[in-house]
Amino acid sequence: MSSKPQDETLNRRSFLRAGGLAVAGIASANAARAETAKPDPLITEEQNWHKYLGDGVDKYPYGMPSKFEKGVIRKNVPWLTAETTSSINFTPLHQQDGIITPSGLCFERHHSGMAEIDPASHRLMINGMVEKPLVFTMDDLKRMPRINRVYFLECAANSGMEWRGAQLNGCQFTHGMIHNVMYAGVSLKTLLNEAGLKPNAKWLMLEGADASGLNRSLPLEKALDDVMIAFGMNGEALRPEQGYPLRAVIPGWQGNMWVKWLRRIEVGDQPWETREETSKYTDLLADGTARRHTFVMDAKSVITNPSPQAPLKFKGRNVLSGFAWSGRGTVKRVDVTLDGGKNWQTARIEGPILEKSMVQFYLDFDWTGQEMLIQSRAMDSTSYVQPTKADLRKVRGVNSIYHNNGIQTWLVKANGEAENVEIS
Amino acid sequence: MSSKPQDETLNRRSFLRAGGLAVAGIASANAARAETAKPDPLITEEQNWHKYLGDGVDKYPYGMPSKFEKGVIRKNVPWLTAETTSSINFTPLHQQDGIITPSGLCFERHHSGMAEIDPASHRLMINGMVEKPLVFTMDDLKRMPRINRVYFLECAANSGMEWRGAQLNGCQFTHGMIHNVMYAGVSLKTLLNEAGLKPNAKWLMLEGADASGLNRSLPLEKALDDVMIAFGMNGEALRPEQGYPLRAVIPGWQGNMWVKWLRRIEVGDQPWETREETSKYTDLLADGTARRHTFVMDAKSVITNPSPQAPLKFKGRNVLSGFAWSGRGTVKRVDVTLDGGKNWQTARIEGPILEKSMVQFYLDFDWTGQEMLIQSRAMDSTSYVQPTKADLRKVRGVNSIYHNNGIQTWLVKANGEAENVEIS
Repeated sequence: MSSKPQDETLNRRSFLRAGGLAVAGIASANAARAETAKPDPLITEEQNWHKYLGDGVDKYPYGMPSKFEKGVIRKNVPWLTAETTSSINFTPLHQQDGIITPSGLCFERHHSGMAEIDPASHRLMINGMVEKPLVFTMDDLKRMPRINRVYFLECAANSGMEWRGAQLNGCQFTHGMIHNVMYAGVSLKTLLNEAGLKPNAKWLMLEGADASGLNRSLPLEKALDDVMIAFGMNGEALRPEQGYPLRAVIPGWQGNMWVKWLRRIEVGDQPWETREETSKYTDLLADGTARRHTFVMDAKSVITNPSPQAPLKFKGRNVLSGFAWSGRGTVKRVDVTLDGGKNWQTARIEGPILEKSMVQFYLDFDWTGQEMLIQSRAMDSTSYVQPTKADLRKVRGVNSIYHNNGIQTWLVKANGEAENVEIS
Repeated sequence: MSSKPQDETLNRRSFLRAGGLAVAGIASANAARAETAKPDPLITEEQNWHKYLGDGVDKYPYGMPSKFEKGVIRKNVPWLTAETTSSINFTPLHQQDGIITPSGLCFERHHSGMAEIDPASHRLMINGMVEKPLVFTMDDLKRMPRINRVYFLECAANSGMEWRGAQLNGCQFTHGMIHNVMYAGVSLKTLLNEAGLKPNAKWLMLEGADASGLNRSLPLEKALDDVMIAFGMNGEALRPEQGYPLRAVIPGWQGNMWVKWLRRIEVGDQPWETREETSKYTDLLADGTARRHTFVMDAKSVITNPSPQAPLKFKGRNVLSGFAWSGRGTVKRVDVTLDGGKNWQTARIEGPILEKSMVQFYLDFDWTGQEMLIQSRAMDSTSYVQPTKADLRKVRGVNSIYHNNGIQTWLVKANGEAENVEIS
């Protein structure tokens, strides 16, 4: 094997673009080799990597996806918000396979854009009704007993556009305000024990260091249960858009409580009734009253393939795939119908089944080209069964934005394309 | 909140660099705001993100780590190989927290550089002693029953430099030829059943589409057990350096058998004795004979913090962390010593414990500034205990390159720095 030319990939591409043998004169060692190679009608030039050296290990100290995967990205919906700094970037769920959402594809929601905080100067303060107010550096936190857990984060507004009927075409947009990540950090209980809670402490207020200063009230009981203060995700540091260097992880509860760029935790004896829990993140009911403190995300599921962004391309055997999750425990079962609810089959849950984590489900099926109304329905470890949208509306009306965990329907047409529809 | 300036971050940085208030005249809306803000001696300007809008959600369709994490990268060792196209990029294990290795930081080893294959034209052929030779497109494979599993991949040569004594300073280099990833793909058994095995089929040969055409023999028994043909890793497509669009996943067995850019599987009745299993990847023993077919990676562990690249910075409480794995099942227990083996404590395994996957372990300890000889020792579900390097050498001599799973020792000095050492 001769040594590698200066920019072999470029040379090879130029060679291909220029039409091959005719321009071998310009050329690199690779082009010269290609000229003498016997053409194989079964192998296109693009496949002929057995003739070329690839990039060396010094090229990508931090690796990136293949250039052929450039369509696998988060997307925002420009008309949804006035400013991109107070908006949403949706996870491409139809392109995720397995329960870990890649960090680069994780749903993000900002109220004042993505802060890029220097961890060296970041601090976390615990104050209020504590024996000893404390300020932690990042180093302080990393020296405390550490935990690693996989949890889903779902925005309360996920599927919120669907209250009044089928709207957005694609599970990235109907269900993509969610991600499932492995977190590294410390238990909030450890920090609170260190500060010492005063006897009448009942609520905490968590506050972010970004310009929105997003803050939310958290009941002490939850804080002492499974809340984490995380500095790591999916094996590396938190990503900036996920609150680097520090965020709250409130397993099973709505995403806006998972305060990012976390800088302060105040201990008190009642909820703060902050802007984000009064003007927003309450559920307006049919009679005009508002439900408050609806923190838990109930069991939910969605079929990601086929779906509007992932049509069926072939008749015969196919894999139906999707995700299910529950804020109340583990997912116990997922049922799938291909005929709008007349018949249900239990899907195969594949991979780890963890507490308050997404699960991946699959159903192998044969497609003869018939139109299908496909739905999935999750059941969790409390035996709660995901409701229909119609059943939800009976209780909640159509004024709500948040907490829509109704069963999603896709219409798969004879040409394989899928559409967001509702059936009664 | 006034609207966002054109390039706020840049304006803000210029303002800071130019020394603040004195140059407010040049300035952006932010600078004007900063001028009127009351200085808070507890908060540096770099922390003042509550005064600035960050980037919007349209900025990063595929997100990246914080600029403050630029030191978290794979590294190669330039003197180790003649060419970077036939070399190694090591996982920064001391910077990984939790069992999932981030895809961008996964160990890579190439024999002819990184091929960048177009999935549209890629094919997998199954031929040889089968009833019906088959060629699969990527679409074909994605329509077959799918599985998702987390497995470690360890190069047989991991820690290979250490046979003759402590050499490389840092667990990235002594133990970083490993990663732990969630794979999506199909069971090889499914593909072989489809092709139909002839009665005397006993071995397979797996072949890559890169210029090295790396190929290895695989016993049929393993192929029909848990081998996967994977197209996904960590929730997205395989990365190019991990064999995009298709690789073999041989759980618990040495990494060079996990053929990347997989294009062909030939079925036969005996091993092929290819270059990679004769001139390489055999174990030269003290008496000059070579062990062959040492496929399984035995139980092993390493302390990642503290370690030469991650010194202790503080006295008082500290977290010792590390990883353990076994190719024969699950990790059952990890013991840690701080005094060169006089006393052992059982470490806390944190996060999922999965078959043939890394586990994360932690030990909380107080450091008074004393010198320490620290080691970890894994025990797996077969009750096999990780041996000392001295015990390994009694059986294997010092000629080997591969399969060194001996206990690693770091000397932590009074200044907190750590060094790769050996103790008898």
